[in-house]
Amino acid sequence: MKLKLKNVFLAYFLVSIAGLLYALVQLAAEQLRQKDLRISQLQADLRRPPPAPAQPPEPEALPTIYVVTPTYARLVQKAELVRLSQTLSLVPRLHWLLVEDAEGPTPLVSGLLAGSGLLFTHLAVLTPKAQRLREGEPGWVRPRGVEQRNRALDWLRSGGGAVGGEKDPPPAGTRGVVYFADDDNTYSRELFEEMRWTRGVSVWPVGLVGGLRFEGPRVQDGRVVGFHTAWEPNRPFPVDMAGFAVALPLLLAKPSAQFDATAPRGHLESSLLSHLVDPKDLEPRAANCTRVLVWHTRTEKPKMKQEEQLQRQGRGSDPAVEAGDKRPLC
Amino acid sequence: MKLKLKNVFLAYFLVSIAGLLYALVQLAAEQLRQKDLRISQLQADLRRPPPAPAQPPEPEALPTIYVVTPTYARLVQKAELVRLSQTLSLVPRLHWLLVEDAEGPTPLVSGLLAGSGLLFTHLAVLTPKAQRLREGEPGWVRPRGVEQRNRALDWLRSGGGAVGGEKDPPPAGTRGVVYFADDDNTYSRELFEEMRWTRGVSVWPVGLVGGLRFEGPRVQDGRVVGFHTAWEPNRPFPVDMAGFAVALPLLLAKPSAQFDATAPRGHLESSLLSHLVDPKDLEPRAANCTRVLVWHTRTEKPKMKQEEQLQRQGRGSDPAVEAGDKRPLC
Repeated sequence: MKLKLKNVFLAYFLVSIAGLLYALVQLAAEQLRQKDLRISQLQADLRRPPPAPAQPPEPEALPTIYVVTPTYARLVQKAELVRLSQTLSLVPRLHWLLVEDAEGPTPLVSGLLAGSGLLFTHLAVLTPKAQRLREGEPGWVRPRGVEQRNRALDWLRSGGGAVGGEKDPPPAGTRGVVYFADDDNTYSRELFEEMRWTRGVSVWPVGLVGGLRFEGPRVQDGRVVGFHTAWEPNRPFPVDMAGFAVALPLLLAKPSAQFDATAPRGHLESSLLSHLVDPKDLEPRAANCTRVLVWHTRTEKPKMKQEEQLQRQGRGSDPAVEAGDKRPLC
Repeated sequence: MKLKLKNVFLAYFLVSIAGLLYALVQLAAEQLRQKDLRISQLQADLRRPPPAPAQPPEPEALPTIYVVTPTYARLVQKAELVRLSQTLSLVPRLHWLLVEDAEGPTPLVSGLLAGSGLLFTHLAVLTPKAQRLREGEPGWVRPRGVEQRNRALDWLRSGGGAVGGEKDPPPAGTRGVVYFADDDNTYSRELFEEMRWTRGVSVWPVGLVGGLRFEGPRVQDGRVVGFHTAWEPNRPFPVDMAGFAVALPLLLAKPSAQFDATAPRGHLESSLLSHLVDPKDLEPRAANCTRVLVWHTRTEKPKMKQEEQLQRQGRGSDPAVEAGDKRPLC
């Protein structure tokens, strides 16, 4: 019996030891499993891309600014388009609609757009001969760029006809604003933020236009009550092409709104705007129209007397160098 | 003896078990320690700031481009300076030296510089009366901006006289290049990267100048062998002000090099460059001078007929609105 009891104790002892060992191994294995889990979690955290640094408001949240620029071949064309494209490159969420007065795209403009880094749509439509300015006629006889701006409106409404860049028009419901920016004016980058949140039609002053230091809306209590202008102040909308922007949804809701090439002098802007808005509902921008952020600058036509002389001697500027328009000099 | 042997076995057994347990515990503890170490390493990795995203070459590693711009009060001044400042804002590591032709800083220019976001130094020096262009005199009779450019050279060499912005000249040993950029030309942003690594004097074509599509150096085998120009091709340096840049160390090493206001027509650039470089050592840029990246555009002087009429009626444009120069209209 004494020996049996000893055996029982021994068995009990061995079983306890085995159990203890088993428990210990399990415990250690469990702890190791948990640590492994933590390690793989941390490794996953490390692989995750870092959070983006604090940024200005998401560009995707901004309404798009569609800038419509008619352009035509001339000596200063490339200089003007370089200067304008660089200004536009400072503006987020902008889509440039560049419309050539030409039968099709020219290499000069296509190359410039491709290198601009801008989101763009390249369009082209030739001004009908009857509407074209004759040699020697002053610029105000026939407004320039009418067909081209209307072509851009067509594209915004139904697409088609793009000869380069983005081919599809804005999808239904796109928030945006449309601005007509000629290629010779001077634009402050601030102007674009003034127009971005236009609900209907927004307006502001334009510098150095109409023989004045500036033309622009007169504002009282936040509403447009008149216009500072010298030329026909009783026009429905005595504003310059550079002095207003239109909300895209409004333009799309009025499919008949376009520019009328036969409008009398100074009435081209009115021919579009009278389809879209009542003058009293114009939205004044640029600190209630007290800040000039766009100027109607005009670039001199360069004199080419020496070029013509050298060309007669067969020593003209190398035509392979793209300096401006490559068409025959006029 | 039999029992003793049993006891020995028992003791041996107990000691082995204890040793085994100890070894197991140590093994588990060691494994846990290693896992803990890995965890704390990973946590440290997570706390470390993420590596900066791939970036263009550190701006600090680039030579500074000192852009010297003389400017004078006129209707288009603000428009021109807005346009130029926006172009310059696209160029990294650039310091704008804006020099007013005025007795002191004007609010228009000071305000524009303050809002430009550029690194700048504001200088001012009035052109002596004898050098000033008379009303009606053509622009080429007397070169404009000579005093102003020389004032900027003085500041680069010894500082002093700044009326706004950075007051201290570049410290000794600064790597940089100096470019004379008038406020009416058109500059492609690409031009500035062409000039940045200038060792002595670099040159390139200028568009729409001298009555030609472009003027510029003729290059053979990477060396300047002549110039394409119509006006006095035998001038020492038949290049336009916008057609060259000078390494800052070279300018500092030749303290007598400056512009000569009495130089004959078309020789102003030569009056500086002849102090600095031999024509054969000019460094051709812009794809061996085959690309035009700067244009000598000129902005028309706006007509103010209507402004004068309205002012006579007491209805002139609000002078509180800054459209351009605020001096009396001429």
